[in-house]
Amino acid sequence: MSHIHNFNAGPAVLPAEVIAQIQAELPNYHQSGISILESSHRSKEYEALNNRAMERIKRLLGLGDSHQIGFLQGGASHQFAMLPMNMLQPGRSGAYVLTGVWAEKAYEEAGRVGSAHIAASSKADNYATLPAPATWQVAPDAAYVHITSNNTIYGTQWATLPPSSQPLVVDMSSDIGSRPIDASNIGMIYAGAQKNLGPAGVTVVTVHNDFLAQMHTNVPTILRYQTHLAAQSLYNTPPVFSVYVLDLVLAWIEAIGLDNLAARNAHKAQLVYDVIDQSGGFYRGHSAVNARSQMNVVFRLPDADLEKKFLATAQTHGMIGLAGHRIIGGLRASLYNALPVASAQALAQLMKEFQRTHG
Amino acid sequence: MSHIHNFNAGPAVLPAEVIAQIQAELPNYHQSGISILESSHRSKEYEALNNRAMERIKRLLGLGDSHQIGFLQGGASHQFAMLPMNMLQPGRSGAYVLTGVWAEKAYEEAGRVGSAHIAASSKADNYATLPAPATWQVAPDAAYVHITSNNTIYGTQWATLPPSSQPLVVDMSSDIGSRPIDASNIGMIYAGAQKNLGPAGVTVVTVHNDFLAQMHTNVPTILRYQTHLAAQSLYNTPPVFSVYVLDLVLAWIEAIGLDNLAARNAHKAQLVYDVIDQSGGFYRGHSAVNARSQMNVVFRLPDADLEKKFLATAQTHGMIGLAGHRIIGGLRASLYNALPVASAQALAQLMKEFQRTHG
Repeated sequence: MSHIHNFNAGPAVLPAEVIAQIQAELPNYHQSGISILESSHRSKEYEALNNRAMERIKRLLGLGDSHQIGFLQGGASHQFAMLPMNMLQPGRSGAYVLTGVWAEKAYEEAGRVGSAHIAASSKADNYATLPAPATWQVAPDAAYVHITSNNTIYGTQWATLPPSSQPLVVDMSSDIGSRPIDASNIGMIYAGAQKNLGPAGVTVVTVHNDFLAQMHTNVPTILRYQTHLAAQSLYNTPPVFSVYVLDLVLAWIEAIGLDNLAARNAHKAQLVYDVIDQSGGFYRGHSAVNARSQMNVVFRLPDADLEKKFLATAQTHGMIGLAGHRIIGGLRASLYNALPVASAQALAQLMKEFQRTHG
Repeated sequence: MSHIHNFNAGPAVLPAEVIAQIQAELPNYHQSGISILESSHRSKEYEALNNRAMERIKRLLGLGDSHQIGFLQGGASHQFAMLPMNMLQPGRSGAYVLTGVWAEKAYEEAGRVGSAHIAASSKADNYATLPAPATWQVAPDAAYVHITSNNTIYGTQWATLPPSSQPLVVDMSSDIGSRPIDASNIGMIYAGAQKNLGPAGVTVVTVHNDFLAQMHTNVPTILRYQTHLAAQSLYNTPPVFSVYVLDLVLAWIEAIGLDNLAARNAHKAQLVYDVIDQSGGFYRGHSAVNARSQMNVVFRLPDADLEKKFLATAQTHGMIGLAGHRIIGGLRASLYNALPVASAQALAQLMKEFQRTHG
């Protein structure tokens, strides 16, 4: 296993220690005599796990008692619909800052459900930049301003969460838990766990109490945030195993320390960006330098043939998941929390060698 | 582990062979060098797994090319809302046969979304019976007739799927894959996997093409069946690990043979019902004899103190999950597919002994 460098964009690499722990305790969770896969979500064991994971999320995101934590299903795409269904009462509109395909999808889904408007967009730049907050046009009836904190396909990321006149709703699917954030402006965060926090199958949601208080009640029960938050995500059967792995990954992050992890993540990204910047144009990053993502480094080679050859060479070095998203092509190195520094070093090394032989 | 008899109502016991296989291949799925937990849903490995699992579901349920298979999230409770959102166009109504709490919830959610009516109900019998199909009052504008094939809380089950003037929609969460069924009348089946087919986190859905053709298009993208079915459940990131375990359990069922498994399930239930029937009233089953469930045996003892004592005694014998649902109290033995015959035998034995000492 250690020979594989997993650059998958998500589901993505998990900490080796976490995989080992899952394997070790798979048949017998905490001396219960049964697997966590067979454990009731009404058991004491799961209740403890669930509460522990909620507390860890609060600590990780720097959220206090004013925020509630939910573990939902359906991924970020499900949130694209659920958010406007809950928030867009008649007379309220959702403001969307378009910085990539996922933001577009969130905006389109909101428009199907209620009133939504584009507050800003960097589409004209092929999403290589982020629209300056000073230029945002947030309508007076906006219930929230929706942003995507990190854009996996185009490799851009807000260096810090932008200021906003209205509560921010942040799709944090691809950089949650990768660095400390300022939560003061946040109405809601949602994130599929499968990039930085765990496996596919669970969506972390945080909602400010004031934001929750503004939500509709005439929404199907299962699609109301209130339903899940009031029941500590036990209204119906939760994705027990995914929450279990989430908790293990959160513990792993806490053991490292979020500041240390953020520094490590910055270092991994710098290793790859340095090669790009010192390649004399052989490697071209997609994003503007001031909008660069530390999670997804998106870049091109001089032509498609070289890109193919690079991917094939990377494969022989045990590097997987480096093909760019089909929308944009080229290459993408996803450097999420659990990717070892050694994998980023190996990639940087290979990029230099590849340029020497093919440049 | 073998000392535990897991009678949990769901999430529930899984085959020991499946747990062992998951454990063995956890760090390295099919020589990919990475865990299935870290595998992309766009990988060849997952595509193969996903297709294989869909084919197995078709074989298990005896469905042909006229039905499509989906692996969704959110459990049956999510289907309670999604079904009427997709099907209840203006002028169409959902007909609901109420046979327990889950059917009630499905009906209530449909009423929030559109027009729904009660075609029949056994609530007056405290859901100990099933309403005879000849008595159902299905409105002329019914788009479907919704039934619950097995009622976990009250311990009733349709011996065979009832006839219906309109396409049946069957919540099969608690008996899917436990016996052969006649699929000829079925518009749609949905089932959370966590009782008979796998872990929590994945919902199996089958939809007849004619039924699919009647669905709305003005529904949020992620809440449309068409979205998921047209994309082979890869529209967005699926719950990879849960589908993986589902596939392993389906393979386990196929290796046993569904007829053999059904016979084994019937035998397990008979072992427990026989003790009830031969106890001279010490044990009282909740359900009418002709409506008995082979999945959940729901019964009472002469008084609450004895029930408490029985549960405590069972615990000392390694039997867990035997408390009845809080709505009805008493005891419940869930005897899903993966529960070994030996566990049903042990329970029957304990019940006899307990009556001898406390009867």
